[in-house]
Amino acid sequence: MVLASVIEGPGRLPEVRSFPEPELEKGAVLLRTIRSEVCGTDVHLYHGRLAETPYPLIPGHINVGEVEDVNGEVFDVDGIPVRPGDLVTFLDVHETCNNCWFCLVAKASTRCPKRKVYGITYGANDGLLGGWSEKIYLKPGVKIMRLSVDPDTFIGGGCGLPTAFHAVCRGRVGLGDTVVVQGSGPVGLNAVALSRLSGATRVILVGTPRERLEVGLKLGADAVVDIGRYGPSERVEEVKKLTGGRGADVCIEATGVPGALTEGMAMTRDAGTYVVVGQYTDNGEVTVNPHSEINKRHLSILGTWGIDFSHFYKSIRVMESNAHNYPWHLLVSHRYGLHETGQAILDVEAQKVVKAVIDPYKT
Amino acid sequence: MVLASVIEGPGRLPEVRSFPEPELEKGAVLLRTIRSEVCGTDVHLYHGRLAETPYPLIPGHINVGEVEDVNGEVFDVDGIPVRPGDLVTFLDVHETCNNCWFCLVAKASTRCPKRKVYGITYGANDGLLGGWSEKIYLKPGVKIMRLSVDPDTFIGGGCGLPTAFHAVCRGRVGLGDTVVVQGSGPVGLNAVALSRLSGATRVILVGTPRERLEVGLKLGADAVVDIGRYGPSERVEEVKKLTGGRGADVCIEATGVPGALTEGMAMTRDAGTYVVVGQYTDNGEVTVNPHSEINKRHLSILGTWGIDFSHFYKSIRVMESNAHNYPWHLLVSHRYGLHETGQAILDVEAQKVVKAVIDPYKT
Amino acid sequence: MVLASVIEGPGRLPEVRSFPEPELEKGAVLLRTIRSEVCGTDVHLYHGRLAETPYPLIPGHINVGEVEDVNGEVFDVDGIPVRPGDLVTFLDVHETCNNCWFCLVAKASTRCPKRKVYGITYGANDGLLGGWSEKIYLKPGVKIMRLSVDPDTFIGGGCGLPTAFHAVCRGRVGLGDTVVVQGSGPVGLNAVALSRLSGATRVILVGTPRERLEVGLKLGADAVVDIGRYGPSERVEEVKKLTGGRGADVCIEATGVPGALTEGMAMTRDAGTYVVVGQYTDNGEVTVNPHSEINKRHLSILGTWGIDFSHFYKSIRVMESNAHNYPWHLLVSHRYGLHETGQAILDVEAQKVVKAVIDPYKT
Amino acid sequence: MVLASVIEGPGRLPEVRSFPEPELEKGAVLLRTIRSEVCGTDVHLYHGRLAETPYPLIPGHINVGEVEDVNGEVFDVDGIPVRPGDLVTFLDVHETCNNCWFCLVAKASTRCPKRKVYGITYGANDGLLGGWSEKIYLKPGVKIMRLSVDPDTFIGGGCGLPTAFHAVCRGRVGLGDTVVVQGSGPVGLNAVALSRLSGATRVILVGTPRERLEVGLKLGADAVVDIGRYGPSERVEEVKKLTGGRGADVCIEATGVPGALTEGMAMTRDAGTYVVVGQYTDNGEVTVNPHSEINKRHLSILGTWGIDFSHFYKSIRVMESNAHNYPWHLLVSHRYGLHETGQAILDVEAQKVVKAVIDPYKT
Repeated sequence: MVLASVIEGPGRLPEVRSFPEPELEKGAVLLRTIRSEVCGTDVHLYHGRLAETPYPLIPGHINVGEVEDVNGEVFDVDGIPVRPGDLVTFLDVHETCNNCWFCLVAKASTRCPKRKVYGITYGANDGLLGGWSEKIYLKPGVKIMRLSVDPDTFIGGGCGLPTAFHAVCRGRVGLGDTVVVQGSGPVGLNAVALSRLSGATRVILVGTPRERLEVGLKLGADAVVDIGRYGPSERVEEVKKLTGGRGADVCIEATGVPGALTEGMAMTRDAGTYVVVGQYTDNGEVTVNPHSEINKRHLSILGTWGIDFSHFYKSIRVMESNAHNYPWHLLVSHRYGLHETGQAILDVEAQKVVKAVIDPYKT
Repeated sequence: MVLASVIEGPGRLPEVRSFPEPELEKGAVLLRTIRSEVCGTDVHLYHGRLAETPYPLIPGHINVGEVEDVNGEVFDVDGIPVRPGDLVTFLDVHETCNNCWFCLVAKASTRCPKRKVYGITYGANDGLLGGWSEKIYLKPGVKIMRLSVDPDTFIGGGCGLPTAFHAVCRGRVGLGDTVVVQGSGPVGLNAVALSRLSGATRVILVGTPRERLEVGLKLGADAVVDIGRYGPSERVEEVKKLTGGRGADVCIEATGVPGALTEGMAMTRDAGTYVVVGQYTDNGEVTVNPHSEINKRHLSILGTWGIDFSHFYKSIRVMESNAHNYPWHLLVSHRYGLHETGQAILDVEAQKVVKAVIDPYKT
Repeated sequence: MVLASVIEGPGRLPEVRSFPEPELEKGAVLLRTIRSEVCGTDVHLYHGRLAETPYPLIPGHINVGEVEDVNGEVFDVDGIPVRPGDLVTFLDVHETCNNCWFCLVAKASTRCPKRKVYGITYGANDGLLGGWSEKIYLKPGVKIMRLSVDPDTFIGGGCGLPTAFHAVCRGRVGLGDTVVVQGSGPVGLNAVALSRLSGATRVILVGTPRERLEVGLKLGADAVVDIGRYGPSERVEEVKKLTGGRGADVCIEATGVPGALTEGMAMTRDAGTYVVVGQYTDNGEVTVNPHSEINKRHLSILGTWGIDFSHFYKSIRVMESNAHNYPWHLLVSHRYGLHETGQAILDVEAQKVVKAVIDPYKT
Repeated sequence: MVLASVIEGPGRLPEVRSFPEPELEKGAVLLRTIRSEVCGTDVHLYHGRLAETPYPLIPGHINVGEVEDVNGEVFDVDGIPVRPGDLVTFLDVHETCNNCWFCLVAKASTRCPKRKVYGITYGANDGLLGGWSEKIYLKPGVKIMRLSVDPDTFIGGGCGLPTAFHAVCRGRVGLGDTVVVQGSGPVGLNAVALSRLSGATRVILVGTPRERLEVGLKLGADAVVDIGRYGPSERVEEVKKLTGGRGADVCIEATGVPGALTEGMAMTRDAGTYVVVGQYTDNGEVTVNPHSEINKRHLSILGTWGIDFSHFYKSIRVMESNAHNYPWHLLVSHRYGLHETGQAILDVEAQKVVKAVIDPYKT
C-alpha cells in the first residue's frame, strides 16, 4: 500500500489515506517521493479557490524522487534511458495537446485547453498524481529530467524557480541591466538570483520581513527596501535614489498585491519593462492612469502566466551550474511529514515560513 | 515679410502676424509652406494644456513645402543635396542630443531631455519654426526628406502615419495576424492601413462615426464595429465573434479614452499584444484587475510614445509605394487659410472634421 | 481498391499500383485526393538522393483533398470537427515527438529526430501516406486545416508557400524594407509575394527564364533581373542601382546553386540580412571571405530549414486573404494524371514547367 | 610641451615627438593619460594595412586618464559634470553624424560614413587624438564615462571588452546556454567572461597557448580545448563530447583565422548561432558547403563589426560590478613607456604578450 495526503474537498485540511500500489502501463514510471513542495497554490486548493478542482486531490506539483520502477524503455528529455535509482524531477504540466491553435500557431502552450497539472487538475481518482504521497505515478509521456543537485537545493528553488525564470526571460534581463524585484517570497527570491545570473549589475529587492530580505542578499540582491519600514511613495523614492533617478530597466512584480502595480510601474524607467508574474489569484483591482503611467512612459507591461518545459529545464541547468554560489536550500525553512501537511498549509497561509516542504518519509 | 498664424497665449485663438524674411545661417534651409496639419495637439496648445509651451507660438509640426533657399550644401537623409524647388518634408523633432543615456544607452531618443519640436516646443521668438506660416525655417541639422507623393496624400497621412507606424512596429503586426484598431481618428485610420500593409489578414476597426468607418474600410479594414451602435461589452462580443472567439493577436488603442483600455485588453487574445498609443493627454484613470486582465491572460501591454526618424522615413516610403491603392488623401476633409486657423482648431475640437489642413496661400 | 503511383526504388520512375481500401483506426481520416504537388524533392526521391528513403514510396507531400471518411471525432487545428465533404489540407510533417530536447528546449521541431514526412519518409508499406494516390490516409493526430481557397490556388502556392513564409519571417521582412529574391522557382516566387505582403516597398526578383519573371511581376516584384542576360557581377550592379547603391535590407536565396551565396551577400546592404533557404540538397561548395564578406559587412546569414505548423497555417491564411490580388494559380503550368507521374518528374527535372501538379482523377 | 609617440608612415615604428600644450575650445576636455592599449590594430597601422590612415598618427584608441582641464560645462553620459581630477574613459568613435540613413533608419551607426576614431582615423595633425601621448584632447561632444575600477582592470578589458560584449549580445547568450569561444586573445577571453556573466552554464574555450587558457579558466571557462594539442576535427569532437553530442547553442569566433569558420560552424548545434567577430582584417578565404553547413543546419551566422556607445557603456558597468570575481587585470602582461612603443608593437605582433599596455609616464 502507498500512503498519500488527500484534500477531500474545499475547506478540508488534508488527511492521510492509503492507496493500492499502482500497476505501471507501458511507458510509465514510478517514483519514490523524496521532497514535494508546499506552495501558495496549495492554500488556494485547500480553500477551494481554483475553479473545477477534481477533489479528492493529492497536492504537490513540484517534486523530486527516486525512480523505483519503469515499464519498458523510457527516456528523459536528453534522450538518456530512465533507470531505477535515478534521481529525477518532472514537469507537472502534462497533456498539452500539440495539436491546437495555441500549441501550434500561437506557440503559447500555457494556453492549451487540454493541459493537465499534477497535484492541481489531476485528482486522486486519476491515480497517484501529486507529490504529497510516498509514490508518484508518471504517466507515459511525462517529461522527465535527471537531477544532479541535492533534493533540498532543488526544492528550495521549487516552482518559484521556473516561474521566475519565465519572468526574467520575458523581461529580457541582460548584461548591465538594473532590476527591481517586488516581493520576497519564493518567486521574488528566485527572480533576484536569476536576474543577477543574467548579468544584471544592480538588483534591488523590495519586500519584507527582514529574514527574507537577508536570503535575498545571499541570492544576489545588492540592495533591499524593507516595505515594513517605508511607505509606498518612499519605496519609489528609495528605488529612484538607487538607480540614478531613472528607475529600473526591468521591474519584476512578484507580490500578488494589486496595488503593487502602480508602485512597480513608477519604479521602472521610461521605456523600461515591467513584468507582472505575481498576480496568480484574484485579489482585486488597481487604478491606473493610461496617459501618465503607460503611454507617456513608453512602458512595456508583460503579464506572465505559467511556464513551459524550456523554462523548467533551463532553470534547473542554471541551478546545477550555480548551486555552489547561490544557496537555494536556504529557502527551505520548514519540513513536514505526510501527517503534518495540514499544518504546512496553515503555516504557509500565515506566512510563518519562507518555504514549507513535504518529506513523505519523515518520521 | 512672411505671414504666420500665432497663438499668443493659453486660451487665445491664433492671429496672423507678419515676420521679417529670415536670414539663413550656414546649413539652414527655407521652405515655402504648401500644407501644414492641424492635429489634436494644436487644440491642447490653444487651451494651454501642455506644460512649458513657449508662447507666442506658430503651430504646425507636420508640414510639406517647397525648398526656396539653401545656405551652403545641405543633404537629405539619403545623402542627396537639397536644391531650391525640391518638394520636401522634415522631422519635427530636432536637437535630440545623441549624447545622453537615453539617446545612447537606452536607445530611446524620444526620452532625450534636450529634444525640441517644431510647432510645439519651439516658440515664435525662436523663429519661423512652425508650419502655420508662409515659410518655415529649417535649422542646420534638421532631418529632411524628399517627397514623391502629392502634398495632399502626405498630409492626409500626417502625424498619424508615423505614430501609427510606431504602434504597428511595436506590436510586431505581421503576416497572418488578426488586428483590432480602437479609434477611427487619424492615428487609428493609419493603423488600419499599416496593419493591412504589414500582412494582417483580418483588420477590425472599432470607432465612429460612420463616415470615418467608411474611410477605414477604404484603407484596409475588413470589418468595422460602430461604437455608436454597440455598448462596451457588445463591442467585445462583436470582436470575439469576428476572431473565432479568441480575440485579436494585436490590438491597437488609438482613442484617448481611458476606459478603452479594459475594453481593448478584452478584445486581445490570450498571450496577445495590446499597444497603447492614443493616450496622448491626461483624461483620467481606469480600473484594472491585474490577475484576470494581465497576468492570467499573459498579455503584453506596450505604451508607445512619440516617434523617431526611422518611423517617419519608413512610413513615408510605405506611403509612396502604396498611395495608388490606399487613398490617404481622403482623410483631408477640410482646408483652411492662415486667417482661418482659429476656426480650424474649433472644428477639430468639435470633431467636425476627419482631418483639417492649413494651406497658407489659400485665398 | 485505391490506385496510387509508386516509386519502387532509386532510379525507377513511378508505376501505378492498386492498394486495398484502408480501414480507419480511431481518430484517422480518409481523404479523396484532389491535387498533389510535384516538387524538386520528388526528383531527388526518384534518383535516390535522400538518405534512408523507405521504398516503395508513394510521393506527394503537399496535398489537398476532400474528406471521405472519419473514424470518431476529429478536430482541425481551430477546434472545428472534421466532416465528410470538407475541403482540407494537412501538414506533411507528423510525429514530431514534443518530448525531446529539440522539440521542448530548443523549440526547433524541424530538428526532432522522430519526425516523419508524408510522401518522403513514410513508405507505401506504411499505408496510403503520399498524395500521388486516389486517397490519402491521415493518421490520428495529423494536423488538419480547412481550406477556403480553390485547390489550384492552394497547390500553386504548394510547399514553396510555407517554405518562403518561413524565410520571410526569419528575415523579418517588414514595412518599408527593400528585398531581393534570388531564384524564380516556386520558393522564390512565393517569397516575392510574401515579401510584398509583409510591407516591403521594393521587391527585386533575380532569376530566369522570362516566363517565370513575368509571374514574379504579377506576384508583387517591381523589378526583375534576368540572369540569362546579366553576368554575376552585373547582376550585383543592377541590384545596387535599384537600391540607392546600398543593396537590399533583406536578400532571400532560393536557387540551390552554391555560387548564389557570395552574389547574394553582395546584394545585401551592410548590416542587412541574408536568408539561405534554397540549398536543399548538396550541390557543392562556395568560397567566402570571412573578413570582407561577413564580419566587416555586419551581415546576418540565416540558414532556414523546413517549416513548422505555424508557417503552414499562417501562410494559408495569408493566401486566403489575398488570393484575389495575387494569382498563385499561375504557378501551376502543367497537370498530370496518376499514369503520367513519371513524365511529371522528368519535366520538373528538365525545368520545362513552373510547377507540375498531380490530379489523380485526371482522365 | 606634451610628449607623444608617433607613427610617421607605413612601415615606420613610432618615435616620440613633442607637441605644444593644446588650447581647449569650448566644450573640450584635456586628459592626463594613465593607460593606453596596444591592440592588433596598432600592428596593422604600423604596417600600413588600413586604408586612408592619416599619418603621422598617434595610436591608442582605448584609454583611461585623469581630467586635467575642462573648458566650460561638460557632462558625462549620465549627465554629471566632468571635473578636473575625475578618472574617465571615452568612446574612441566620434562624429557619427546622426543624420544619415545608416545612423537614423538602419540604426547601424558603425556604418556611418562620417565616423572618426581616436588613434586610427584622426591623425597627429588633427591634434592630440590618440592615447600614446601624455595628454589626450577630447573634442566637444566626445562621449565621456566616469570610471570606478582601477586603470589596470579597465585596460585589461580594453577594446576586447566592448567588442566581446557586442558579440555576446548579438549571439543572445542567456541563462542556461552552452557557449564555445574560439580564440584566446583579448576578445575571446572577454567573450568567455561575458558569456558566463550572461548566464551561460557551460563555457568552452578553444585556443592556445596554455597561459592564455589558464586566464580563460579564471575568467569563467569551465573547459578548454588546446589547439596546440588537438587537430581541427579532434577539436570538434572534443566540443561535441562536452556538449552532449549536440554542439554549442552559441559559438563565438574570435580568431582572425578564416579556417576557423567551418570549424566553428561544426561546433554549433543545429539551429544554433555562430557569431563572427574576429575576422577584423583580410586573411584570405574559406570554403563552405551551403547545404550541409548552413541551410540544413538552420544556422544563424552573425557578422559583428565594431561597437556603439551602448556596448562600451554597459560593458564597463558590468566590469565595475564584477571586477572582484573576474580578474581582468590578468590580461595585462606587459607595460611599456612612450619610448618603448615600437617594442610593444613588435611584441604584440610576435604574440609574446597577452596584452601590452602603454603607460606614458613610465620611467
